[in-house]
Amino acid sequence: MDTLDKKNDMINVINDEILKYLKKYSGKEMYEPMEYSLKAGGKRFRPMIMLLMCEALSNDYKDAIPFAVAIECIHTYSLIHDDLPSMDNDDLRRGVPTCHKKFDEATAILAGDGLLNIAFEIMLDKLQNNFEKKYLKAINCIAISSGTNGMIKGQALDIKAEGKNINEKELFNIYENKTGKLILASMKAGAIIGGASQEQLEIIEDTAYKLGIAFQIQDDILDIEGDQEKIGKPINSDLKNNKSTYVSIYGIEKAKKDYINLSSQVLKNLESLGFVNKQIYHYIKNLINRNS
Amino acid sequence: MDTLDKKNDMINVINDEILKYLKKYSGKEMYEPMEYSLKAGGKRFRPMIMLLMCEALSNDYKDAIPFAVAIECIHTYSLIHDDLPSMDNDDLRRGVPTCHKKFDEATAILAGDGLLNIAFEIMLDKLQNNFEKKYLKAINCIAISSGTNGMIKGQALDIKAEGKNINEKELFNIYENKTGKLILASMKAGAIIGGASQEQLEIIEDTAYKLGIAFQIQDDILDIEGDQEKIGKPINSDLKNNKSTYVSIYGIEKAKKDYINLSSQVLKNLESLGFVNKQIYHYIKNLINRNS
Repeated sequence: MDTLDKKNDMINVINDEILKYLKKYSGKEMYEPMEYSLKAGGKRFRPMIMLLMCEALSNDYKDAIPFAVAIECIHTYSLIHDDLPSMDNDDLRRGVPTCHKKFDEATAILAGDGLLNIAFEIMLDKLQNNFEKKYLKAINCIAISSGTNGMIKGQALDIKAEGKNINEKELFNIYENKTGKLILASMKAGAIIGGASQEQLEIIEDTAYKLGIAFQIQDDILDIEGDQEKIGKPINSDLKNNKSTYVSIYGIEKAKKDYINLSSQVLKNLESLGFVNKQIYHYIKNLINRNS
Repeated sequence: MDTLDKKNDMINVINDEILKYLKKYSGKEMYEPMEYSLKAGGKRFRPMIMLLMCEALSNDYKDAIPFAVAIECIHTYSLIHDDLPSMDNDDLRRGVPTCHKKFDEATAILAGDGLLNIAFEIMLDKLQNNFEKKYLKAINCIAISSGTNGMIKGQALDIKAEGKNINEKELFNIYENKTGKLILASMKAGAIIGGASQEQLEIIEDTAYKLGIAFQIQDDILDIEGDQEKIGKPINSDLKNNKSTYVSIYGIEKAKKDYINLSSQVLKNLESLGFVNKQIYHYIKNLINRNS
């Protein structure tokens, strides 16, 4: 199986598992809006790096599947709530109407709440079946990252910053928390489940942190130079929303330079971990060259 | 120490612990709205029955404190989201402006999300410190009860029912899920942590179920006959919101009769558990006679 096939294979695994778990944990009243938002696509970036990191360390990823599904549930809940009229007020997400546009606001709020709750139900169930400390450590890592010292803090800062000129430090604080913490948690949880040593874990944390910032800078660049159809949302939306971004603060040239610099550090870290022939290396290398 | 003093003492413990845990788990960006809603009062009914159930079984309640704080965080998050304009659109809760009125809608949505996340962080931390299956069992019980097969399902059904005439079965489905499941989880988690036997657990589940329905019927009666200042929200609000309630379906007389009947079954169950001299018995007996 070549690299591309293997990658698509894992995305299929993730997509199948998401629906399997959703059926198991959600009552029929909430299934439709949650399924709609989960199915609306996305790269499955977070579950992918979690499973691939686990596989790189242990040659297996099956034990990480419940956590990969959970992290996608958390990511999707955060998008549903972020899109609400009182937040970013977006009508389109991943190329299709946002949850509150397809259904209604109350349903979207509850679907988000439901997905966050389900994420924990799925992970706790795995811990119930395999009562091992490493699984608890992975749940804790994800819980802290998604909370008010992580992703929610980032969203709160982002909303406060809207329409204001913010400085570099404030921008990094948003990036680190709003996007970075969940990317960090994805990679770190995969590493914990894969049995990483403390030394490996430190390198992986540094890698994930840099990947998260790089990912966000790339988003800002694509918002200016991307193809609207490919990225599934209007370009120049940050500009229109009067949002400070890496590009608006540093300019497009420095943004591109910093992006390349961060990306090469990410790959170097993965090389130092001995992952150059592992799927995760190729996946991230491809991701770095994405144009959507 | 007499009964009343002991009860107030435990409410003080709960209030102190809530703020202690909140400080520990919430970032400064979200502290204020979460603290506002948590501090806005309430009877602390759910944490009280959890701690008192744990104490009745084991003569101690300290191990249940993190779970009691967590259940109050979940209850408060559900109130914040239920009060939102797209849900029940309430301006007043527990006698003070609702979270979105005091702050804004985006803040209220994030404060709710944050409190749900914090609830899990607190419980997981306890499990990290005491890696015992009974704590995981308690977390699982709370997680399932608060999710899309529990409280969230109840809220979804409640919203769908608004402005419609629903039948008895539909009303019970709402009561059982929207209010009942979290009350059930409170008592059951307290029992699990207190070391209840399987036989005791079954009686406790039946007790909590009946208490939850009785509590909801009492709310409906108070909405008609209560004192606005004491209950902290306008009376006749269900009538104004065109909501089907136990009283609107069965009439006030049958509501009162069923309430008395359920309440006496709750007390009988507690007697059969040998709790007649325990705090939980007196607490629930007082609660049954509440007029606010």
